[in-house]
Amino acid sequence: MSKETVDILLTNGYLVTMDSQMNLYPTGSVAIKDNKIVALGTAAEIEAAYEATTFIDCQNCIISPGLINAHTHAAMNLLRGLADDLRLDVWLYGYMMPVEREFVDENFCYTGSLLACAEMIRSGVTTFCDMYYNEAEVARATVEAGLRAILGQTILIFSSPDATNYDESIEYCRRFIKEWLNHPLIIPAVAPHAPYTSTADMLQACVALAVEFDVPLHTHIAETALEQENSLNQHDSTVVPWLESHGLFKAKVIAAHCVHLEESEMRTMQQYHAGVAHCPSSNLKLASGVAPIQKMIDFGLHVGIGTDGAASNNDLDMFEETRLAAFLQKGVFHDPTLLPAKTAWSAATIEGARALHIDHLTGSLEVGKRADIAIISANNAHQWPHFARDPEAVYARLVYATKATDVRDVIVDGKVLMRQRKLLTMNEQRILQDAEKISKRIDAFLTAREGNILSKLLAITADFVPQETFEIQAKVELPQWVEISTIVETLGLQMIRPTIRDQYDTYFLFDDKEAGRLRYREDEIKNKQGELKETFYTMTLMGPAVEKDFENSIVLTRARYMATAQHSLRFYREYFRPRTEQEVVKHRQRCHIRYQETEFSLNLDKLADKVYLEIKSRTWSAKDAIHKAELISELLAKLR
Amino acid sequence: MSKETVDILLTNGYLVTMDSQMNLYPTGSVAIKDNKIVALGTAAEIEAAYEATTFIDCQNCIISPGLINAHTHAAMNLLRGLADDLRLDVWLYGYMMPVEREFVDENFCYTGSLLACAEMIRSGVTTFCDMYYNEAEVARATVEAGLRAILGQTILIFSSPDATNYDESIEYCRRFIKEWLNHPLIIPAVAPHAPYTSTADMLQACVALAVEFDVPLHTHIAETALEQENSLNQHDSTVVPWLESHGLFKAKVIAAHCVHLEESEMRTMQQYHAGVAHCPSSNLKLASGVAPIQKMIDFGLHVGIGTDGAASNNDLDMFEETRLAAFLQKGVFHDPTLLPAKTAWSAATIEGARALHIDHLTGSLEVGKRADIAIISANNAHQWPHFARDPEAVYARLVYATKATDVRDVIVDGKVLMRQRKLLTMNEQRILQDAEKISKRIDAFLTAREGNILSKLLAITADFVPQETFEIQAKVELPQWVEISTIVETLGLQMIRPTIRDQYDTYFLFDDKEAGRLRYREDEIKNKQGELKETFYTMTLMGPAVEKDFENSIVLTRARYMATAQHSLRFYREYFRPRTEQEVVKHRQRCHIRYQETEFSLNLDKLADKVYLEIKSRTWSAKDAIHKAELISELLAKLR
Repeated sequence: MSKETVDILLTNGYLVTMDSQMNLYPTGSVAIKDNKIVALGTAAEIEAAYEATTFIDCQNCIISPGLINAHTHAAMNLLRGLADDLRLDVWLYGYMMPVEREFVDENFCYTGSLLACAEMIRSGVTTFCDMYYNEAEVARATVEAGLRAILGQTILIFSSPDATNYDESIEYCRRFIKEWLNHPLIIPAVAPHAPYTSTADMLQACVALAVEFDVPLHTHIAETALEQENSLNQHDSTVVPWLESHGLFKAKVIAAHCVHLEESEMRTMQQYHAGVAHCPSSNLKLASGVAPIQKMIDFGLHVGIGTDGAASNNDLDMFEETRLAAFLQKGVFHDPTLLPAKTAWSAATIEGARALHIDHLTGSLEVGKRADIAIISANNAHQWPHFARDPEAVYARLVYATKATDVRDVIVDGKVLMRQRKLLTMNEQRILQDAEKISKRIDAFLTAREGNILSKLLAITADFVPQETFEIQAKVELPQWVEISTIVETLGLQMIRPTIRDQYDTYFLFDDKEAGRLRYREDEIKNKQGELKETFYTMTLMGPAVEKDFENSIVLTRARYMATAQHSLRFYREYFRPRTEQEVVKHRQRCHIRYQETEFSLNLDKLADKVYLEIKSRTWSAKDAIHKAELISELLAKLR
Repeated sequence: MSKETVDILLTNGYLVTMDSQMNLYPTGSVAIKDNKIVALGTAAEIEAAYEATTFIDCQNCIISPGLINAHTHAAMNLLRGLADDLRLDVWLYGYMMPVEREFVDENFCYTGSLLACAEMIRSGVTTFCDMYYNEAEVARATVEAGLRAILGQTILIFSSPDATNYDESIEYCRRFIKEWLNHPLIIPAVAPHAPYTSTADMLQACVALAVEFDVPLHTHIAETALEQENSLNQHDSTVVPWLESHGLFKAKVIAAHCVHLEESEMRTMQQYHAGVAHCPSSNLKLASGVAPIQKMIDFGLHVGIGTDGAASNNDLDMFEETRLAAFLQKGVFHDPTLLPAKTAWSAATIEGARALHIDHLTGSLEVGKRADIAIISANNAHQWPHFARDPEAVYARLVYATKATDVRDVIVDGKVLMRQRKLLTMNEQRILQDAEKISKRIDAFLTAREGNILSKLLAITADFVPQETFEIQAKVELPQWVEISTIVETLGLQMIRPTIRDQYDTYFLFDDKEAGRLRYREDEIKNKQGELKETFYTMTLMGPAVEKDFENSIVLTRARYMATAQHSLRFYREYFRPRTEQEVVKHRQRCHIRYQETEFSLNLDKLADKVYLEIKSRTWSAKDAIHKAELISELLAKLR
């Protein structure tokens, strides 16, 4: 009998099919023609029927479906290790967003994605699901690498690195979909970033686009407890019912994270066949929590596993993720039988494909499916010995004892991308060099910024304004409390814009005296009855001062910048990391007065058990400053 | 100026010293003479002063103290993947203990430890802390591999693979300590297994031995919530105060796990300078929980990181453990700033050394310390790019983005154990072969056992006894309930040993009919008022029966084994994995009667709303069985 000729024959491997019967062939073979699997089974049976132009001996290896990275932001590989161990807001608003705003362009997305593809191929990934900007560039990199991917173009209510508004993003996404639809490797997708960065209108437009082209819709859902809390406050509903009410689930949804879903939300998502991408490393590292995925699986949801971006992981190692997923269900939900190795390996392969709505193409080794395969060394010291008693022990070997670096060969769409750990489609050295060019610019940008409190503050603040250079002030201690109105009467003047407030000041002090001081001030404005009317928060940067004494008053010359404090004191503390802090709490009666055609502010402060009166003004002019200092002396004389 | 000659010069690496100032040298060198570090600093400075016989270029590498695996059972590498995803009791009593009882001997400990050493060297470990049996064999393997280790000889109240009682273990341990004391690589230790496997006397003897020779005492503390609960029930105290009351902390304690410590227990341990070995993978995999190590560190405890044994991990990868340790503190205790990378890397190195009471020898790169060093490639795709803005980013690179397989060279006590990922002291192929010989025997043993319910039951049951082969029984349905005393009166006989009980039976049925059925029975013995007097649990294996009908009765011929059920129904369910289960609940009045010199048992059963009377007996003799069947017919006739 003459043998049929195929392109590639994988032989003598331990075949883990992940098909519907979870068939295992301890000595198995796979025949590949063009981009598809045309036969598989025992080595004897396949080798008897097929011959091949390329013959890959898989002795001592496991032949498995390639891993499916169900959620990542590939290009963020360029931001790996940029900022770690920070709270989400400091990480995001302090580092990620300022750097993305400055650096994310087409070249960034192309180069970062190439770096990510190299890393993913090296760790046995054959398909990934992406969400980022300039996805056409991500597609270009992915095709060059030879990987399969679902590529979601990000859409946000606010401006993003590739669009000034969401209409532009949707238009970009439409062009992107049209360009890449029906590509053998790429499935374009619509990626509204998250419920909390969407409006109902925006979501509906995204759904319409996804439905029009029958492409997936990739989004983040319920990543943090805060997201659910805010959703309840804003919409009187948790996120899934709110998304459902705007028709989100008409599309083929791929929902990343899902850490804080209620059971009813799991049921809703299951009814609509929405897929879940579980990202355990990222959810731990950013302290979001642990998604109860065994429960989701019990509800019938398809749960895949994703690495998330390298900026919050910090690698794209699906072996790590899969092991961690299994460990976490057991340890955090108090039952070692949860997410057994077989279920975990399913999540990394066939269930991942189902979650991404592409199980007709990939995720298992079956005749007719695309040849997306990882060949994994299984006889290394750290995987030894093997026990044959339980045939399913192979899953435990894969999940609990195998490392990404044990992946020996990778095939995607019938094409060998890695052989004996050499990348065949990519020039890794060149990619590292290109990546380094971008990272060096980012490094220089941030190093400059970090070396200067002002630029560090400017990077995260929209309304920062410089104030007058000269500050003229006199400060006298009063023997006891008097009302500010009594003082102004004594001066024979009128109170202008009087206010009563409690002020809570925190000063950040730095090692470098030249850096100046930062003041975070909470102003609680009270009415006459002492009830709270309003609170506002300001951030003031005061440069080092040159001080000049006048009679009874001083003139300070220094740069001074002020802005509304949009973040919490804790945020600023973690972002600026001052050497030390000082707190000042005072009760202040404040008003303005006009004296000799000049306005001054008057502060009557009670600090602990002391009472101070301040008379102050500011100006851009040195000459004016001296004039005002003289006027302040006159005022003080009247008060004696 | 002439240069001083040393043995080894490491140059051009990124030097991460972990010394008390946490000094970093981005281009650094280390000079090694004999087994010690004699100089380190910038490459320029060191290369100007030293020349060497061996020169190791560390360009693109990080030079770090080697990792310290603070808790493992090295020889258990031979049990890797033997049984996974099981609950602790099924795993331990069903698989680990029966296999250890059967296979753990000197050769097992030597071979298993060699396999573990190979794996540990490959992942950058330079010191490990062990607890197992036959530690002299572990020592022999460790010295052959060239690693540094603290080796704790296990001491238990019950018999162990290397001793029939704890006095023997203590004697073994004393000999072991004397033999290995003052070895340059080995520090022998006393290892009472855990509080719950110790008596006060045994602990005191262990402490005395450790104090006599000034060696560490290695033990498991507070691994599970159950351990604390049982301690409270038994000793009216959590474990640490109980251990303290028996003087445990007079020794240099190394406490593994510490998952469920109360704050007061942390304080106690800190006061006694006890070290902690955190084992995050094992604690998750066996569902013990997550130890709050950031809190322990804040209390001033020294916390190292351990892999635990490969049977519950399933590898000895300290990079995985360290990353996981950092992730878990953040994710489970809701704060991403907990256990930052620098602290995590400390735990894996210098703090591990402090926890093991050997920081005078190792754990950091400092002049005078032993040369225990890992040289780690840092420019791979998965670690790229690098940012220089924050010099401490090197710790994030090590903890979050580096893999065990990035370790390029390993030096211990001044000797190169691995160079360019080749092991220089070990014949890895031969070790794998030797390990396989043992694993194949274990595999055969368990395969035979698993194929047979009886041997599977025997493996976990002490008091299992075969019962009489022949069972003679008649069963009639009664139209309504009558007291059993009335029935016995009708027969004109006396009630012997009457009891009243509720019986809850669960039958496990298997695919293989020949396997027979297993019955788990809960007997609740009641007094006449129906109050519970006593509960007992039995496990009965009933082989397939040959049934022979007699007038009104049957004789069953079958093997039948009975034992006290020492574990829970849930345990047996998970251990035997029956295809299906049947439950029978009945109220039973039971007594014995003597008729024609022969004793029978009489069971009056109420099942749902039916009433049955059974007359039964058992015998070893076929002839006797027929005789008894005839007597039962007579008894039945009297009841008509």
